[in-house]
Amino acid sequence: MLIEVLELVGVVAFAASGALVGVSKRLDIFGVCLLGVFTAIGGGVIRDVLLDIHPPTSLNTWPNFTTALVTSLVVFFLHSAVSRLRREILVLDAVGMGLFASSGAAIALTAGASGQAACLIGATTAIGGGVLRDVLVNELPLLLHRDLYAVPALIGSTVVVACSGFGLASNVGLVVGTVSASTIRLLALWRHWNLPGPRISES
Amino acid sequence: MLIEVLELVGVVAFAASGALVGVSKRLDIFGVCLLGVFTAIGGGVIRDVLLDIHPPTSLNTWPNFTTALVTSLVVFFLHSAVSRLRREILVLDAVGMGLFASSGAAIALTAGASGQAACLIGATTAIGGGVLRDVLVNELPLLLHRDLYAVPALIGSTVVVACSGFGLASNVGLVVGTVSASTIRLLALWRHWNLPGPRISES
Amino acid sequence: MLIEVLELVGVVAFAASGALVGVSKRLDIFGVCLLGVFTAIGGGVIRDVLLDIHPPTSLNTWPNFTTALVTSLVVFFLHSAVSRLRREILVLDAVGMGLFASSGAAIALTAGASGQAACLIGATTAIGGGVLRDVLVNELPLLLHRDLYAVPALIGSTVVVACSGFGLASNVGLVVGTVSASTIRLLALWRHWNLPGPRISES
Repeated sequence: MLIEVLELVGVVAFAASGALVGVSKRLDIFGVCLLGVFTAIGGGVIRDVLLDIHPPTSLNTWPNFTTALVTSLVVFFLHSAVSRLRREILVLDAVGMGLFASSGAAIALTAGASGQAACLIGATTAIGGGVLRDVLVNELPLLLHRDLYAVPALIGSTVVVACSGFGLASNVGLVVGTVSASTIRLLALWRHWNLPGPRISES
Repeated sequence: MLIEVLELVGVVAFAASGALVGVSKRLDIFGVCLLGVFTAIGGGVIRDVLLDIHPPTSLNTWPNFTTALVTSLVVFFLHSAVSRLRREILVLDAVGMGLFASSGAAIALTAGASGQAACLIGATTAIGGGVLRDVLVNELPLLLHRDLYAVPALIGSTVVVACSGFGLASNVGLVVGTVSASTIRLLALWRHWNLPGPRISES
Repeated sequence: MLIEVLELVGVVAFAASGALVGVSKRLDIFGVCLLGVFTAIGGGVIRDVLLDIHPPTSLNTWPNFTTALVTSLVVFFLHSAVSRLRREILVLDAVGMGLFASSGAAIALTAGASGQAACLIGATTAIGGGVLRDVLVNELPLLLHRDLYAVPALIGSTVVVACSGFGLASNVGLVVGTVSASTIRLLALWRHWNLPGPRISES
């Protein structure tokens, strides 16, 4: 139950981030909704394609899709109010990212993936939507160069795989994974952590 | 039989639109053909991946692929003549879009997808190729901001799902869906319908 | 055994090319690794998704992934030394491309794909990673407009399909396909072969 609620929290945050990018690019109402929905459910669709879950859950059932669509419409009509909530959206986004990474890894393990594949597919679930969003609007994906985003996602999915390796109940892994990933992401935002770039001599 | 012919009409129109973009970007002959083929069969390949149809039909059988390739070659060599047919291509493209959306939805229902998934996957079949084309050449996808294209596609696939829900024969749904989607698309082109963009105050 | 070694050679070359692009775009260490890994294993992941191999081999087993990751890290820390090896990387890349195209076609035939699908999926295995790399960093994919890259890949996969059609052992096809594709690619690099672009009158 808590997991279902957290998942919808993540969907709201992801859809809002996608729709806000759409507004800033001055897309029409359909483009804003498409970008919001893609950002929110894209990672899960990629996860399901990689794991042979057909048709992908987020397409086949209504909660995630409907939530993403309604959120995008709200952003379209109230974008100036929503954009003042940037800080709150970042916090919800961190929670959603942590949960998507952890639940993605758990679903991959259940589908018979190896530990390595579960780590990678869990992280892909969390970051896939954001990468699709940036590719669709021709931006260099944020997480490639500025955001400490994929590393916490990888940590979350790895924690889930490790917990499962130690024989812990899958709910324990899910909680510990989500909390670790979200906490690290929030710390990174708060303390402005960045990964080092290449050392390039300017001679 | 009519459906097969209409499908090839759509493939020709989609391949021509992709190849013309390739010519305008001054790609070489292979790039023009690749872009034409991607645009023509990309949506169907995505549909088949989402529905677990392996290998995707358009890759595995020759008619669509060959038609797309020949069309792209014709565009490459005769692009100045072809680009004078822009209006005719738009009409054929509307027919193809309507059919791809409707047949995509029907194929999804047959594959066991829910009604919602069939609507979404049908629309994806119709718009997927065009989005791939725009992403490959680093353009903001047209349908995100200027073209009333995805909405008619969604209407077409929804009509198919509704007809199936009312217990009508699948051919009826296919015809009604294709006609609705194509008609709305042509009306939108003719009357310059646009979707509203976000209201952004310029203060 | 030779095939495994050649495959890792290809992974090293592909990862190095992706990571060097990442360094030139000044991505952070994670972005450089992600781009290197995507370039190296992206084609194989797409192949497996098209052929219903789940989870994709390169995600599920460690050799390719680990090799790509280590290569990307080496490029990140030693990029000025590595970029002096551009010529050597191009040769290794040609060998890897030939092998990926040929083994991709052979794997597709084994999975029950038609000859046409095996040609197309083999070529996709070889070029998919590079296209993903260019799309992620918002560049027009090199092979669409400048590089004679996809044609040798298609020749390699076609040779494999032809050898299989003539009833030759699959190892024979693999060797002949790899050698043909790599040789043509190297000749194209050496002699600066290009495909013709569209004839556009500048009036």
